[in-house]
Amino acid sequence: MKSVFFISDRTGITTESIGNALLTQFTDVEFKKEFIPFVDSESKAYQALAKISSRYIQYGHRPIVFTSIMNPLIRDKFKIDSVFHIDFFESFIPKLEAELGEKASLAVGMSHGINNEEKYYKRIEAIDFSLNNDDGVSAKNYEQADVILVGVSRVGKTPTCLYLAVNYGIKAANYPFAELDLVNKKLPKALVPFHSKLFGLTIDIDRLHHIRSNRLPNSKYAELNTCKTEVAAAENVFHDDDISYLNVSKKSIEEISVAIIQRIKLNH
Amino acid sequence: MKSVFFISDRTGITTESIGNALLTQFTDVEFKKEFIPFVDSESKAYQALAKISSRYIQYGHRPIVFTSIMNPLIRDKFKIDSVFHIDFFESFIPKLEAELGEKASLAVGMSHGINNEEKYYKRIEAIDFSLNNDDGVSAKNYEQADVILVGVSRVGKTPTCLYLAVNYGIKAANYPFAELDLVNKKLPKALVPFHSKLFGLTIDIDRLHHIRSNRLPNSKYAELNTCKTEVAAAENVFHDDDISYLNVSKKSIEEISVAIIQRIKLNH
Repeated sequence: MKSVFFISDRTGITTESIGNALLTQFTDVEFKKEFIPFVDSESKAYQALAKISSRYIQYGHRPIVFTSIMNPLIRDKFKIDSVFHIDFFESFIPKLEAELGEKASLAVGMSHGINNEEKYYKRIEAIDFSLNNDDGVSAKNYEQADVILVGVSRVGKTPTCLYLAVNYGIKAANYPFAELDLVNKKLPKALVPFHSKLFGLTIDIDRLHHIRSNRLPNSKYAELNTCKTEVAAAENVFHDDDISYLNVSKKSIEEISVAIIQRIKLNH
Repeated sequence: MKSVFFISDRTGITTESIGNALLTQFTDVEFKKEFIPFVDSESKAYQALAKISSRYIQYGHRPIVFTSIMNPLIRDKFKIDSVFHIDFFESFIPKLEAELGEKASLAVGMSHGINNEEKYYKRIEAIDFSLNNDDGVSAKNYEQADVILVGVSRVGKTPTCLYLAVNYGIKAANYPFAELDLVNKKLPKALVPFHSKLFGLTIDIDRLHHIRSNRLPNSKYAELNTCKTEVAAAENVFHDDDISYLNVSKKSIEEISVAIIQRIKLNH
């Protein structure tokens, strides 16, 4: 077991994410991961070092410590022999300074700060919008939507809408293809005026069966045959009405969301 | 204007995030940022390079290109003089190989993949939970909650709950302190059995006034005096009942969420 720390002067979300991406490359090692955010003073650095030392003693080897700390006085506390230290800013800032011909300001990383009022309100508004336009409750706000996700029940529309709102401030509505729409094999009337905003999600039948069975075991809704009929009908609508769509079976919410963002950009 | 690209073999969310954190250090430069995800083949790399070249011609200088691409054959396409190239894996993988005494597997970065079934269901369940336990609609599921956020209206409970669910699979409920609770200055009865799960959010009065005015201009609800009374009463409850809390006025949803995660960990 190898001890790993992710340490940041801010939330550390990015630090953990890139550190994890690096560690997944080493499949034969088991890692014990710990996460220390908001290390923005020398005393907090010393507290973190105390924890790191205790893991050194416990596991008998020096911990791997990923940091993103802008202030060199704080960051340098981790440059000691008993720590295997990788800092994500340090390596790149000097190169960028040379390329841009400007000195870095060394302000604490701002990527997750509330520094942008407008962006903050946009995000809160998008969250309210997604909550109020979930599950096809009403089509009257679709004029304001950035995107409207369509597809069968449990294909992943709601999680994707919320992810887009919470992380990107994108106003995402969703409209489930219900039984009636699927029998008609036609795009529901309420959606016709908003064709350019539609984005379809589809899924492998086995996976949908699995997800629905997890939710409502032994129901008609979860039956393989129901899943098959519904998915086929939905995909028919996507084809006939020329709606871009994505099979989400092997995709995470992040991947689906990024694919949708790319699509929205193309439409603007 | 400097042209910047974020290019990844997966979503590129992390690449963009760390790239942006680096660029915010250069306050005198204006950047034109572009984002190309899912570059997982040589032909997609060439497509990206075509776009990069067009920006070189347009702006008259070589673009800055941040990549995180695991396959060296694809990544190396960006190692040309007309590109200022920074790759987030390349710099660190050899160091980690040396430290761990193992070769990297060079699989595409998996941090956002759906590779973990259990994690996927946990997340979907948490999203359902947060949607069904928003705004104190019912206390009957609080047994299952990982955390219950409390505070006055528009302090940021719902966005934080959704962020925790969508990004971390944490079951977060929220319960608004309504007028009656605030007149009594007592913790609502429904919450008493779940004291160990409570986490309070508070906010500066001016900021709350600003947020509420944005939502319902000229209402009693948004009046500075209403905000003052409600916030004071809520903070009283936090003190009297020994509930950990956080002032969110200058904090982003990410920062609030990470602070809450730290708190949840301490309680386990």
